[in-house]
Amino acid sequence: MKRIKVLQNISSANDAIAAQNRELLDSYNILAINLMSSPGAGKTSLILSTIAHLRHRLRMAVIEGDIASRIDADKIGKEGIPVVQINTGGSCSLEAHMITNALEKLPLKTTELLFIENVGNLICPAGFSLGEHRKVVVSSIAEGDDKPAKYPIMFSLADAVVINKIDLLPLQEFDLIGFRKKVTGLNPKVTIFEISCKTGQGIEAWCSWLLEQLQDRGKHK
Amino acid sequence: MKRIKVLQNISSANDAIAAQNRELLDSYNILAINLMSSPGAGKTSLILSTIAHLRHRLRMAVIEGDIASRIDADKIGKEGIPVVQINTGGSCSLEAHMITNALEKLPLKTTELLFIENVGNLICPAGFSLGEHRKVVVSSIAEGDDKPAKYPIMFSLADAVVINKIDLLPLQEFDLIGFRKKVTGLNPKVTIFEISCKTGQGIEAWCSWLLEQLQDRGKHK
Repeated sequence: MKRIKVLQNISSANDAIAAQNRELLDSYNILAINLMSSPGAGKTSLILSTIAHLRHRLRMAVIEGDIASRIDADKIGKEGIPVVQINTGGSCSLEAHMITNALEKLPLKTTELLFIENVGNLICPAGFSLGEHRKVVVSSIAEGDDKPAKYPIMFSLADAVVINKIDLLPLQEFDLIGFRKKVTGLNPKVTIFEISCKTGQGIEAWCSWLLEQLQDRGKHK
Repeated sequence: MKRIKVLQNISSANDAIAAQNRELLDSYNILAINLMSSPGAGKTSLILSTIAHLRHRLRMAVIEGDIASRIDADKIGKEGIPVVQINTGGSCSLEAHMITNALEKLPLKTTELLFIENVGNLICPAGFSLGEHRKVVVSSIAEGDDKPAKYPIMFSLADAVVINKIDLLPLQEFDLIGFRKKVTGLNPKVTIFEISCKTGQGIEAWCSWLLEQLQDRGKHK
């Protein structure tokens, strides 16, 4: 019971900081997307594909979360996009206070779309709001079709689910219809994309969705 | 500071229960393997391939850990192998007390090798000893070659690392030599296997290693 109480306190402290982040983002009219997935599902690849597709229409920035290394931040930095790497040490999720610090290092005045790439993990990030406007879960064909059944909380919180590495579909036993049914059963309002960052399949529909989310907030009318 | 203190207390309580589990396993001369990986790297497939390969030589049992569902336990059960499913709810790792409960439901007298399949996660399970004799990390080609750099704690604790889905190597950009170097840099004593549960490549070497671990404990001489 004591443990639960402490975790509850941590959670409400996080939510209060997340609300402040959200206010700050709103004051600059920035749309923030919290990208979550297993390790290696393709969050960074999705950001890189989106940058290639939208860089002439939108000003983007990225916050990269990892236990260790700055491999992903270096990939984004090479594209000339503002990026901050957060290393959480042992922590299995980004937390709102880490985002507060990262936002201080980004050019908020000239940012319209912010990707927050969370630590690769289908569990912990579900418990920490960061102040984002949309939660997106990336799930790759290579992981198998049982992930929504095994990690229901993560899938039930998502505004959108990206099924990545769709080019591997002919090589894997993956029940695409069953996967979609399970996700919409948990989360009837979710939008699902089938994407290959390798071949470019589905990137256009994903980018259109992002632009719609920006419009919904009164931007880019 | 208060949070760290509470987490330290949880950790030492876990270690004490893990030591009891280990004593119980030793009293039955059972070798326990804690299998850890990202979601969908192939832990269950590795167990199923091992069962197919060793079922006539060894008596095995399995503990399956997942946030939700009993998909994996059903797969093992179909093979006629004793299995217990643990659903952790929201918890991102199996913990020692969960194993204590599961062991009560398994036929310990007739078990020689016990697989404990942890929750799919490259972070939290590194923090919880379960009483196992060996820690094995499964990492799939589909996840990319940067996982040891991003999740160094997990890889540094492993007795063995299984690189699974090696059949996907021709289709992925994956620096196999670099991956091996990074892992052995973190963990010079680790044994590394290249395996495809789909084609059977490498399963024999993996099973020989398991038999050696049993021998090292004075069994199967």
